[in-house]
Amino acid sequence: MSKIKELGEFELIHRLSSRLKFRASNTVLGIGDDCAVYPVKSGANEVISTDALVEDIHFKLSTTTPETLGRKALSVSLSDIAAMGGTPKRVLVTLGIPKKISVSFLDRLYSGFNSICNQFKVELAGGDTVSSPKCFFINVSIIGEVNPGRVFTRQGARQGDLIFVTGTLGDSSLGLELLNKKQRRASSKDHKFLIGRHMDPTPRVREAGILARSKINITSMIDISDGLVQDLYHICKSSKVGARIQEDRLPRSAEFSRTCNRNQVDPFPFLLNGGEDYELLFTLPPDGVKNLKRQFLKAKALVTQIGEIALKPKKVLLEKSDGRNEFLPESAGFNHF
Amino acid sequence: MSKIKELGEFELIHRLSSRLKFRASNTVLGIGDDCAVYPVKSGANEVISTDALVEDIHFKLSTTTPETLGRKALSVSLSDIAAMGGTPKRVLVTLGIPKKISVSFLDRLYSGFNSICNQFKVELAGGDTVSSPKCFFINVSIIGEVNPGRVFTRQGARQGDLIFVTGTLGDSSLGLELLNKKQRRASSKDHKFLIGRHMDPTPRVREAGILARSKINITSMIDISDGLVQDLYHICKSSKVGARIQEDRLPRSAEFSRTCNRNQVDPFPFLLNGGEDYELLFTLPPDGVKNLKRQFLKAKALVTQIGEIALKPKKVLLEKSDGRNEFLPESAGFNHF
Repeated sequence: MSKIKELGEFELIHRLSSRLKFRASNTVLGIGDDCAVYPVKSGANEVISTDALVEDIHFKLSTTTPETLGRKALSVSLSDIAAMGGTPKRVLVTLGIPKKISVSFLDRLYSGFNSICNQFKVELAGGDTVSSPKCFFINVSIIGEVNPGRVFTRQGARQGDLIFVTGTLGDSSLGLELLNKKQRRASSKDHKFLIGRHMDPTPRVREAGILARSKINITSMIDISDGLVQDLYHICKSSKVGARIQEDRLPRSAEFSRTCNRNQVDPFPFLLNGGEDYELLFTLPPDGVKNLKRQFLKAKALVTQIGEIALKPKKVLLEKSDGRNEFLPESAGFNHF
Repeated sequence: MSKIKELGEFELIHRLSSRLKFRASNTVLGIGDDCAVYPVKSGANEVISTDALVEDIHFKLSTTTPETLGRKALSVSLSDIAAMGGTPKRVLVTLGIPKKISVSFLDRLYSGFNSICNQFKVELAGGDTVSSPKCFFINVSIIGEVNPGRVFTRQGARQGDLIFVTGTLGDSSLGLELLNKKQRRASSKDHKFLIGRHMDPTPRVREAGILARSKINITSMIDISDGLVQDLYHICKSSKVGARIQEDRLPRSAEFSRTCNRNQVDPFPFLLNGGEDYELLFTLPPDGVKNLKRQFLKAKALVTQIGEIALKPKKVLLEKSDGRNEFLPESAGFNHF
């Protein structure tokens, strides 16, 4: 097996980049020079973001494969673009590589990058590979396009707007719990599904596209990375409003419900505060609901109303199934420091 | 002194980003949402790059200040944009933060970012701060604009083209040598200059602008990060040509020459293979020389012809002052793996 030291940086970059298959038709200059060069789409806005994943903070090499790690590193960034109503176009990937990492690990990591690039028509436009003495890290910067009239930010939710979420909640954090308990040997189909939702989340690029192309008045949007409540607080703070959500409405997968029941686990910490759902959380006035539901039904995509925006108090209130109400704290989400 | 853990990620980002002063006049949405959003300049090309600096590989916390580290992290990326003939516009900065890093360190680091952003009118458009268990790292992704007709790549140098370099060579690597020898206590003005060239290099954005706005037929360009010879090989390989350079012509600062003389140090390893000069290395046909020199004289910027492009052999040949010629090896530059 060839070692990275023997290959050297330039050979390594050549080896990895030569495997990338997706190339945008309008690329002026791809990977391999000081910079990559692209024409910009006249009239579009550029939407940009950057995210790092660090070994033992965001992932463990013992519980992931290089392929799924590569997929997830890109998916998380694609989710940020989706959260603005944008279309992801290209990524720049930096790898911080400690000595323990082999060339074959990197080959498999790039195969993960490649599969997401092909799936979402995103170009890996450049990167940097650096030696990192102790821990492996991946940084992904992403550039997308967004229609200037359809930029969905956290700011703009108004009293009476309804709150919607795509997909189901809590799968990822329950999957992480299963991973950490190392119940993988005898893992059932349900466990596999939940762990897969954690290891290989689907960025809601398609759903963001449906919203962006529609005429629906989306007043605010975010992707759920820190947990439903914390990300809803981000919307509330930016929009200077409060929110009420109904316990009964929180969408959950059959796999999630069965696993909670079987293990007598309280589902609400996962539904409310579990991180890394990468679902879209957004608001719209009631008159857009019919259109929204029609569009999502047509696309066979899941969307659920979970509550509504209130003017006061500027907090997130949970309406429980037993009729009681509870103000939820802001910071029960993941604090990695 | 407040600790990062006490502040938490969101408070930390708010604290750091609130100090940033430069904001482009056309920003749609700056730092603070899932992404930043910008209008794109119709007709321009986008030019993008990413670079990471890792503690103990690219810098030592014991021999840098947070301010100069912040400046250098951005300058290195600005240099990549300059190398394409582009104008830097915005950066995304990721910090991987171990426990030992204090909030005041980060404040000072951001003050370094801020000074470069102001100096070059670049906006810090977003970032990510993550916990890193063992080592501190900085990743900078940069987006610039370039005139589609004036994109300078490594490819295009032709037989008979003359080779030019901005500024002076070897200062940075000699400065690093001085730093590592810890001769800082009694450091002379010369030493301070050389160490400054290593710690706080000037990206040649202004010089790139002169070239881009001129009508000079720049046939290839790169910035010198790996050392003159290695980066000249990058041009030779991409352009499928060789090069001859003259020992006597290699531009050196008075500080560099004096320090080499005083310490009886051979200047050529530094001039030829010393990394991190961040000068521009470029080629043009002889008929552009008069115009080039006039433009640089007018701007009071240094530019020196150091050799010319040959068709064969596809190597870098050094013509020595004693009349002998020597083929230079390709890989004497810095290999950080």
